[in-house]
Amino acid sequence: MAVYTEVPADTLERFLAGYGVGSLVMAKGIAEGVSNSNYLVETSGGRFILTLYERRIAAAELPWFLGLMTHLAEAGLPVPRPLPDLSGRVLQRLCGRDAALIAWLPGVSVSEPTVGQCRAAGEALARLHLAGAGYPPTRANGLGLVFAHQAAATLGSRLDTLEPGLAALVASSLDRLDAGWPGGLPRGIIHADLFPDNVLFLGERISGLIDFYFAAFDLFAYDLAVLRMAWSFTADGARFLPERDAALRAGYRAVRPLAAEEEAALPLLSELACLRFLLTRALDLFEGDAGALVQRKDPLAFARRLRHVRAHG
Amino acid sequence: MAVYTEVPADTLERFLAGYGVGSLVMAKGIAEGVSNSNYLVETSGGRFILTLYERRIAAAELPWFLGLMTHLAEAGLPVPRPLPDLSGRVLQRLCGRDAALIAWLPGVSVSEPTVGQCRAAGEALARLHLAGAGYPPTRANGLGLVFAHQAAATLGSRLDTLEPGLAALVASSLDRLDAGWPGGLPRGIIHADLFPDNVLFLGERISGLIDFYFAAFDLFAYDLAVLRMAWSFTADGARFLPERDAALRAGYRAVRPLAAEEEAALPLLSELACLRFLLTRALDLFEGDAGALVQRKDPLAFARRLRHVRAHG
Repeated sequence: MAVYTEVPADTLERFLAGYGVGSLVMAKGIAEGVSNSNYLVETSGGRFILTLYERRIAAAELPWFLGLMTHLAEAGLPVPRPLPDLSGRVLQRLCGRDAALIAWLPGVSVSEPTVGQCRAAGEALARLHLAGAGYPPTRANGLGLVFAHQAAATLGSRLDTLEPGLAALVASSLDRLDAGWPGGLPRGIIHADLFPDNVLFLGERISGLIDFYFAAFDLFAYDLAVLRMAWSFTADGARFLPERDAALRAGYRAVRPLAAEEEAALPLLSELACLRFLLTRALDLFEGDAGALVQRKDPLAFARRLRHVRAHG
Repeated sequence: MAVYTEVPADTLERFLAGYGVGSLVMAKGIAEGVSNSNYLVETSGGRFILTLYERRIAAAELPWFLGLMTHLAEAGLPVPRPLPDLSGRVLQRLCGRDAALIAWLPGVSVSEPTVGQCRAAGEALARLHLAGAGYPPTRANGLGLVFAHQAAATLGSRLDTLEPGLAALVASSLDRLDAGWPGGLPRGIIHADLFPDNVLFLGERISGLIDFYFAAFDLFAYDLAVLRMAWSFTADGARFLPERDAALRAGYRAVRPLAAEEEAALPLLSELACLRFLLTRALDLFEGDAGALVQRKDPLAFARRLRHVRAHG
């Protein structure tokens, strides 16, 4: 949501010369992502996103993320493709940061998706799951059930200062997940954060799937549960929108049919999806860097979703 | 330097429909300006800057600023032109803010201008001074000598906490300005903030003069003094770069010859230019809104420039 590292125009011109993409026409720092500095760059040769990686992303994981984006783009998905420079390197250093020049994709994210857009998002997630086959499954999901246990312990009774009873609600969902964990479901590369902000549309057509920096190897059905929780409620979590949920699931199934066990696990995995966002938001609130230019998000928006999925699945 | 107001894509599409500029292709919040929210917007019909005016700019002054930009663009200067909607209106309301859709200009700002770029900046400033003729001179410069007196009084001895002796240095320059004020010099519309960030280049050619929200009716020579102080030093003010200063002045004179009294007044007006930025930066530091997403700038960078112009003119 901010530009942390400023790149002077002359430094940028030298950097771009290493790619042979022509002369600089425009560079604007853009308010995108919460953990990187991003510039929209236009040259006489095309349009690009320049990303500088700030501290939140471990440098050791960058080759995996950039490789995944390349893998998915080569499979034909509308995923931003990291570009090699003239010597073939993708990962660079710029202004003291790891950096990459990435192909630009058109489109806008919507805050109130239509049913048609929900169906397209479900289809795209399933395509991503299929296209991830063959990519090294070496990155575990750091924000799964183990994380949820740890975060709940770290936060403890502070959760109740957000809303009385919240700590008990979280503990009870953790118990349900421990007891009912659907261990044998199909796994593969998941996006793990496919909120409407991370999908670009031109009308009802998806033109971009972006922000792969939470991607990991985990249950496909969990990723679909994240999609449901991200798209099928009003942003404050107060109202469930069943027509969106139905469209997401129908779109997904049309591309990758769900096994009966996956269907059966969706309600419980949706609880985990709620816990993941509830807990990371609560940690940002209580333990985040007060100086960071990051817009804080409301953990309770996911407490409301959690109550809904516990009551209605 | 930040996006304060978020505009949802569907709201933006409705807004753009009022202009008949085609369908939305991209909208990115950009890190530009310190007092507005800015989006780079692309439609099937072109590229635009959408500006939402936050509190720092008085709503009553917006028509004057937008009218000036239109006036200068019509005179052929590369100034962002505010666009009328289909009903002819330029000033709009969007997401609870005053807003305007403005023609986009290509180019990048440079942090270390070449001598050729300095010459071009001097020429452009002179052209702007000539082109402002005929525009209503109804906006006084609120950041001139009267402001400097008031700000120095408000800040008082707090200036010395930035650097011992700073309050006395400021007071002494104010005395010199009071005693030697060059009252009869030519006046007109000035930009008043033509720093390198506010000039866009394609190579050595200027493709844009931007950010007119400090423009006012005041001495032309003061505006040239601001340009000198903004462009002829390293950003920290530690080193004067005489070749840049010479190029700025030569470029200006080539378009609008300076009267002998204007030449003579440049050193003293350069002191005022230093005071203006020193004092607004100090006020931001001591009295600014701590929550604002504005990057604080160092007042001492202009104390160093002030010492230089007092010693060398």
